[in-house]
Amino acid sequence: MNLILLFPEDFVSGAPARVLLRGRRLLHVTQIHRASTGDELRVGILGGRIGTGRISALDSDRLEMEVRLEKEPPAPLPATLVLALPRPLMLKRVLHAATTMGVKRIAIIGARRVERSFWNSRALQDDSIREQLVLGLEQAGDTVLPEVRLSTRFKRFVVDELPEWSAGSLALVAHPGAAIECPRQVGRPITLAVGPEGGFSDFEIETFEGVGFEAVHLGERILRVEAAVPALLSRLL
Amino acid sequence: MNLILLFPEDFVSGAPARVLLRGRRLLHVTQIHRASTGDELRVGILGGRIGTGRISALDSDRLEMEVRLEKEPPAPLPATLVLALPRPLMLKRVLHAATTMGVKRIAIIGARRVERSFWNSRALQDDSIREQLVLGLEQAGDTVLPEVRLSTRFKRFVVDELPEWSAGSLALVAHPGAAIECPRQVGRPITLAVGPEGGFSDFEIETFEGVGFEAVHLGERILRVEAAVPALLSRLL
Repeated sequence: MNLILLFPEDFVSGAPARVLLRGRRLLHVTQIHRASTGDELRVGILGGRIGTGRISALDSDRLEMEVRLEKEPPAPLPATLVLALPRPLMLKRVLHAATTMGVKRIAIIGARRVERSFWNSRALQDDSIREQLVLGLEQAGDTVLPEVRLSTRFKRFVVDELPEWSAGSLALVAHPGAAIECPRQVGRPITLAVGPEGGFSDFEIETFEGVGFEAVHLGERILRVEAAVPALLSRLL
Repeated sequence: MNLILLFPEDFVSGAPARVLLRGRRLLHVTQIHRASTGDELRVGILGGRIGTGRISALDSDRLEMEVRLEKEPPAPLPATLVLALPRPLMLKRVLHAATTMGVKRIAIIGARRVERSFWNSRALQDDSIREQLVLGLEQAGDTVLPEVRLSTRFKRFVVDELPEWSAGSLALVAHPGAAIECPRQVGRPITLAVGPEGGFSDFEIETFEGVGFEAVHLGERILRVEAAVPALLSRLL
């Protein structure tokens, strides 16, 4: 936790701004930061500015801080991510990684090689997704939650919604075996689609190409989605 | 599993080369590949060539294949990785990711902010490390195991051993807050050091600098090691 994310309901007074924390964040401050009264911690308010919190009271039950929020959060990454639903454990990691890197729009979609049972996973429930996004923001030192869109229907999403999402961006679909190598440092916003284990089907690649995407590869080696996403984003932007 | 890794003891005859598999690999072929007799699968022999295996017999107890190994495995990534020991679950993921990307030499070292208890983890035992390396090779379609070196003593490793490891390479230590941005596509071998949660200490950074490393940052956001490693490798190489 490189930043303690604050929510409106944490505030107990406005001027000076003071927050009262219990539970997970209190535990983290005492056990990981091993902070004590008078220490300053990096904080930020959900969707807003970042700054410092000075601990004014701390015991096993509660943490009070006076907070000053004087800086904008880090710039977002100009990237939209379209992910074929990975297995639940990987979904958690890739949501965390993408959030940490600053992606602000993520679509999770069906594809032929996505196992149907994955759609019933606990990891897809709102609170579970939100947990990974919050952990990702706390890791990155950011405050702005990504928007996450779920769509079980591949074609409906790619044909009907994706063109609007990808308008004005460089639109790429990562596809092992594609003819073109993934470009570097493209200097413009991107929309990046990443397939399931086993890859998108030929039909799916053609559907992406039909709405202006180009298929690109990252070399001979096939990465797991949790490594592919950081590798691709870092290379492209 | 994008490649079935074969070991010398799998071979039941030499010409034609035939292997007999049971256990995990058999299960994977029947349940994930859903292969049947006559199908061809991608195979490779540990430390050697890759090719195809044609299934000649398959039941719930055993899989027999005739294998032809006609191609070299993918080129290694010209990168040596030096990792402050991460927490056990992350260690597994980062070993997997680094292996998948083609890193062939990994040192796992102590540092001030590495929790001592991590050194007692099951994840550091030889068979546990080797499991992640094998899974990484199978994911990547590679056959060449990385060499993994463990050293609890930061200074002894960095001062006494690292200069030989990093000779002739661009030597970088990832350090949030460093003055210099991480370069891109450097076109030469690299040695890359990545710190623990909380980062290397000032003394540790100075020790790296003393043996020719340069501290570089990846921007304002702080990534978890499992995302930082693919992001850094992909950007540098």
